[in-house]
Amino acid sequence: MVDSKIKLAIVGVGKIVKDQHHPSIIKNPDYELVATASRNGFLDGIESFKSIESLLANRKDLDAVSLCMPPQYRFTAAKFALEHGVDVLLEKPPGATVCEVNQLEKLAVMNDCQLYTTWHSRHAPAVANAKRFLSQPQLKIEEVLINWKEDVRKWHPNQEWIWQAGGLGVFDPGINGLSILTHILPASFFVETSILKFPENRAAPIAANLSFTSEDGYRIIGEFDWGISGGEEWNIEVITDQGKLILSSGGAKLAIDGEPQEVEQYSEHGEYESIYREFSSLVSNRKSNVDVSPLALVADAFLLGERIILESFDE
Amino acid sequence: MVDSKIKLAIVGVGKIVKDQHHPSIIKNPDYELVATASRNGFLDGIESFKSIESLLANRKDLDAVSLCMPPQYRFTAAKFALEHGVDVLLEKPPGATVCEVNQLEKLAVMNDCQLYTTWHSRHAPAVANAKRFLSQPQLKIEEVLINWKEDVRKWHPNQEWIWQAGGLGVFDPGINGLSILTHILPASFFVETSILKFPENRAAPIAANLSFTSEDGYRIIGEFDWGISGGEEWNIEVITDQGKLILSSGGAKLAIDGEPQEVEQYSEHGEYESIYREFSSLVSNRKSNVDVSPLALVADAFLLGERIILESFDE
Repeated sequence: MVDSKIKLAIVGVGKIVKDQHHPSIIKNPDYELVATASRNGFLDGIESFKSIESLLANRKDLDAVSLCMPPQYRFTAAKFALEHGVDVLLEKPPGATVCEVNQLEKLAVMNDCQLYTTWHSRHAPAVANAKRFLSQPQLKIEEVLINWKEDVRKWHPNQEWIWQAGGLGVFDPGINGLSILTHILPASFFVETSILKFPENRAAPIAANLSFTSEDGYRIIGEFDWGISGGEEWNIEVITDQGKLILSSGGAKLAIDGEPQEVEQYSEHGEYESIYREFSSLVSNRKSNVDVSPLALVADAFLLGERIILESFDE
Repeated sequence: MVDSKIKLAIVGVGKIVKDQHHPSIIKNPDYELVATASRNGFLDGIESFKSIESLLANRKDLDAVSLCMPPQYRFTAAKFALEHGVDVLLEKPPGATVCEVNQLEKLAVMNDCQLYTTWHSRHAPAVANAKRFLSQPQLKIEEVLINWKEDVRKWHPNQEWIWQAGGLGVFDPGINGLSILTHILPASFFVETSILKFPENRAAPIAANLSFTSEDGYRIIGEFDWGISGGEEWNIEVITDQGKLILSSGGAKLAIDGEPQEVEQYSEHGEYESIYREFSSLVSNRKSNVDVSPLALVADAFLLGERIILESFDE
């Protein structure tokens, strides 16, 4: 993209767009942010439309869209964009269901467009280093622990939709951990047992205990909890025959056998800057990057889940 | 396969093997049934082993295996077979989780083996006719209703595992209906809303109300119920601009605008005979047929499901 910038629009302008997408896009010379489409939101100084239909009717020069509306509205918008020959970036999770994302992958191929299902935590500073360590050909993984715990009152105050059916509950953050794990482990893994804990007044789980089996035979234990107070615990521990890897702070820090490893220093938009660098490269090279596996693991956890009812949760 | 028969073994010998697989295989001249592997079951006059490991160690001449053990044991056995260069047929559902079946598809390609995920209801006598009617290029579908209702006490007496977490509950039969629907409808469709009804003493739902959206825009309404007494209702109704199609009796009967359509007469093993004809053709032509979509729709129904607790269910 030396001569021509990617003409990009953002659809669904909310907090994550203002905090992350917008600043990351304007820093990247590969993009020209030409418009937004959103029922209520807009960005100062950028042409705005109310819907993706009017956006695409008016801006026929568009190369790509970033879809940041709530997951249940993404399929229709993505299909519409792909059928109009526009490349698509999807905020996480890429849809409300696994099946619709599989179908989007087919639609992208049929329309000769590129599709990118982003998982921002995969772009955290220490994730690439962890992946490199675990990819050593002789290394043998023995056991994996993933703890993804935070205080829902601190991180999601008054977000009613995350407690509704389909809102994912504790897997709204937990899927970030699973997106890292599916990225850094060399072997596939599958849910083996799942215990989901629901507050009696909520439709989504506040905590979950999962176990997974890896295709290579080792066990993965996962603990997801939204009910802790105070700090956060966003950690992955991988015990190998060549040392114990600890990826902590949501992928920001890495230690091997207790020794902190040097990782790249990130700005506050580092993960999304990396996402937009990758999208530029995908668009230029006419490649897609579609991975629904973190959402599919969560769906499998619900499919196999034993449900335990806890006392009511009130904010 | 004019000169050489497919040397086949069955792994996991239970009721479905004795009722359907065995009689269908021995009727088909494309196959030589050389052995079984099962912890407890066996078939009179057929060499038997206790495990797939000892089966494959002793019968190096094997071309293919039919895996009929419970779903949670299928992945390991299928992986083992594929890595030994043996083609694999999987009873329904093809696994306990969606992710493991996706991985088996990759393993089949990597090992240059063929994988066939069977859905026996797709082979019911009137299904092909229904698919042909709905595939007419000018036909427009307006609405779809799927009712899959039966008396669990009649069809699944004392089957404790179907009530356990992961046992699928009402989707154990319901997935048969969904396997037909995904096969006969020209467009993809996805779960939009899901209400799951759990008896308070059971980990799996006894009933479910689903709605789906089709990629083409029409609505699909699904009612699944295990709690009816007496008869069965295994029906799909498709309202189109060229008439109303009713596929009933689990795919055995077809009517268009009330007019019964002629369909092939089947023996009592008709569905499985058709399965084994297709598998023979896949093996000969070195093709796989992998479709996890019925299970993926069920997983999505659990992912989005609103849970309602009903009174206890006792047999």
